Amino acid sequence: MAEDWGLYHKAAGEGNKKVDSRQGIGLFRTFLNFGETPVIPLRFDKLGGLVPAVVQDWRSGEVLMVAFMNAAAWEATLRTGLATYWSRSREELWVKGQSSGRVQRVREIRIDCDADTVLLKVEQVGDAACHTGHRSCFHRRVAGKMLETVGEPLFDPREVYGR
Amino acid sequence: MAEDWGLYHKAAGEGNKKVDSRQGIGLFRTFLNFGETPVIPLRFDKLGGLVPAVVQDWRSGEVLMVAFMNAAAWEATLRTGLATYWSRSREELWVKGQSSGRVQRVREIRIDCDADTVLLKVEQVGDAACHTGHRSCFHRRVAGKMLETVGEPLFDPREVYGR
Repeated sequence: MAEDWGLYHKAAGEGNKKVDSRQGIGLFRTFLNFGETPVIPLRFDKLGGLVPAVVQDWRSGEVLMVAFMNAAAWEATLRTGLATYWSRSREELWVKGQSSGRVQRVREIRIDCDADTVLLKVEQVGDAACHTGHRSCFHRRVAGKMLETVGEPLFDPREVYGR
Repeated sequence: MAEDWGLYHKAAGEGNKKVDSRQGIGLFRTFLNFGETPVIPLRFDKLGGLVPAVVQDWRSGEVLMVAFMNAAAWEATLRTGLATYWSRSREELWVKGQSSGRVQRVREIRIDCDADTVLLKVEQVGDAACHTGHRSCFHRRVAGKMLETVGEPLFDPREVYGR
């Protein structure tokens, strides 16, 4: 599957800033012939319709972020090869990086023993996954009673998000 | 902090099969003088009193499991240096490995940008984190429309858990 996504990512174009998820869906169906429904069932019932998704850099193994998926987000991720979540704050499907271009190309998916959590190994376009500009959302380390920041931001969020 | 936990783990004994969490608490207080309450506040309110905890091997970076912490589990983890979760099925605090001896010694803790998720980098005693005997709970990989198992179990769960 990872190889098929590789083809998909290539076909979709490495340099696209904006991702058209409908176009991606069409391309991906051509490769994998996935149906309309998720082929790998998950236990969405244990957390009010959601499962946590851990996102890991596919090469370095660095944990970049954790987000949540509902059934539609899971189905879209399987279908398009682009990490898609459920935004709890905006209450909508969220193709990660859709506005900034910093999408996550899924290279491998793991399911845990209880089928209530997924692990995505992704290629993070633009290197940084965090809205702060840091590579990982987990850039703060517990140091005694304090938190210390690890590393420097890779981009200025004001330039990318206009705030 | 990681170094202090190193001292703690050494003092607590490398070979202990059973972990007495009260003893651990006493030892750890001596080193760090933590108070009774969590020193690093987290957003437990976003998920009904829980935060997801991603658990990663501190050396290899392999993601071993995901569990949940309530405030008491978070406080116990900070205080003892042993990964402690909230068991949603048993509805009780769960010092990982307390019955099997396969505890997780916390080497580093990261907090995400929203302070609603934690990342533990741990030393997994006994190598395997999963109750199936596999090193990681994420030992099933999505392959097309199927799941394939990655790797072999490191122990026989019937021998460890008697079932």
